[in-house]
Amino acid sequence: MTAEAVLDKVTTARQRFAARLSAVAADVELCLARELPQPTGHQSDIMEAMRYAALGGGKRLRPFLTVEAARLLGGDEASALHVGCALECLHVYSLVHDDLPCMDDDDLRRGRPTVHRVYDEAMAVLAGDGLLTHAFQMLSDEAAHSDPAVRIRLVAELARASGTHGMIGGQVVDITVLESERDTALITSLQAMKTGALIRFATQAGCLVAGGQAQDFAALNSYSTALGLAFQIQDDVLDVEGDAAVVGKAVGKDEHLGKATFVSLLGLAGAKDKARRLGDTAKAALAPYGEKAQTLIGAVDFVLEREH
Amino acid sequence: MTAEAVLDKVTTARQRFAARLSAVAADVELCLARELPQPTGHQSDIMEAMRYAALGGGKRLRPFLTVEAARLLGGDEASALHVGCALECLHVYSLVHDDLPCMDDDDLRRGRPTVHRVYDEAMAVLAGDGLLTHAFQMLSDEAAHSDPAVRIRLVAELARASGTHGMIGGQVVDITVLESERDTALITSLQAMKTGALIRFATQAGCLVAGGQAQDFAALNSYSTALGLAFQIQDDVLDVEGDAAVVGKAVGKDEHLGKATFVSLLGLAGAKDKARRLGDTAKAALAPYGEKAQTLIGAVDFVLEREH
Repeated sequence: MTAEAVLDKVTTARQRFAARLSAVAADVELCLARELPQPTGHQSDIMEAMRYAALGGGKRLRPFLTVEAARLLGGDEASALHVGCALECLHVYSLVHDDLPCMDDDDLRRGRPTVHRVYDEAMAVLAGDGLLTHAFQMLSDEAAHSDPAVRIRLVAELARASGTHGMIGGQVVDITVLESERDTALITSLQAMKTGALIRFATQAGCLVAGGQAQDFAALNSYSTALGLAFQIQDDVLDVEGDAAVVGKAVGKDEHLGKATFVSLLGLAGAKDKARRLGDTAKAALAPYGEKAQTLIGAVDFVLEREH
Repeated sequence: MTAEAVLDKVTTARQRFAARLSAVAADVELCLARELPQPTGHQSDIMEAMRYAALGGGKRLRPFLTVEAARLLGGDEASALHVGCALECLHVYSLVHDDLPCMDDDDLRRGRPTVHRVYDEAMAVLAGDGLLTHAFQMLSDEAAHSDPAVRIRLVAELARASGTHGMIGGQVVDITVLESERDTALITSLQAMKTGALIRFATQAGCLVAGGQAQDFAALNSYSTALGLAFQIQDDVLDVEGDAAVVGKAVGKDEHLGKATFVSLLGLAGAKDKARRLGDTAKAALAPYGEKAQTLIGAVDFVLEREH
């Protein structure tokens, strides 16, 4: 193959991936718009706040991974989309609460004012609570899967991934552990909980929806564990190299806060190198699936090359 | 029967009820102590905060209703206790978030400093999130019921009862609706969501655990709907008549805030009368069960006569 042909093939793969990511993001938007409570009655404020937080933006990487993991294994895509949207509700609740004045005190999210800036703090707390609750309501719905045993397994795994041994635990470690205690091992385990647990759940959920076998769970788990950490390292890189207008949230915060990150611990080149190696691990985990895994493989390049 | 014999019988029933309530509360305490995450690792702070919020107090009325509803129908008491404790986690999360400075800004709860006073605001937000998440984790556990179809139904019903059409919705209405709009109809529907929905879920969950029939659901629903509203009216009465040291939280807040309550709308005598009539409705709903329902009947008197 000529250099030009290789470049063409790479370009085409990138374009195909981008098209697929956009298509799923559009499906996610429609599904969330339909599934989130419609503003009504005296409690319409919170329903508007929940919709403001959840609709109109985001890469929708987590539901994308659920849909693509299910597709890889021949699972029902409508079920996977519904489950992915439940996961997205949970992810969005965590952003709304993380942005609160008593937490990260952020004014900007996905390029727009945060929920507590548009509404108020009380409504942001309640809208987050509402989204968290709605995530479990969506998983309990038959649209998630026809078999109640699969649905309750999804509930169990999402609660575990997002609880004190998962996402919430990671957030607590992040806000309580002293700078002097932060080394690469601690940051790695912190991020495995804070962002990694939900990304692992994303592919695991697709596997559950599709009725995957033990080797599918193992392969997708290796893939998403590596991908999740690469994603976080790229987040740290963007905090140093990124442009707030493109990233959609404040940048340079970590350095300003004197916060240890993969970049401060490994250097910019070291962090990028680590992310690349994790990307290779993620891709290798899906080798047994051959061409069928090309979209999930594409997600690795997307995560490593993303600018927001 | 002589007047003395009647009095004896009443006293004995009250004592029997009090003993039963204490016994279940002790079981709840043990179950929660076992089921809540044990403080460990770098995230031990939040686990301690969750345990501080959930352990060591409270009437445990909601899990009591779940256990007693299941017992009435011959259901498994260990399952009912587990489900009741999941419900209690959800109730406690709502207290932790309601007490936040941006919400009711309360310093005292169950006679002790509130979570954000002992820890800080960020930890109170996260501990609430953790308790909410843990409630669904507990319902997904086999200890809740051996049949996954029953467990997923419990998840669906709890999510509905505690979401924007239930508890959270009621809280939003309470903090956003103007004083001028508050009449008895609005306060009744607000309270049916804010406190009523979880109390209805409590008995419904017992019925689900016990595999109750449609008429059992209907009877327990009438009972708990009336009981829940009577409970709230008594709360308003206590806010006027109560002693903070006995009630365990600040009193006189409603009047201080100029907040319309059943007492301000109906007068003290009118409110007490309405609560009594609701109590009669609750008792009548359980008439078909005869003597078997005596503990749940006792709960009505307890709610009407409670001083905290």
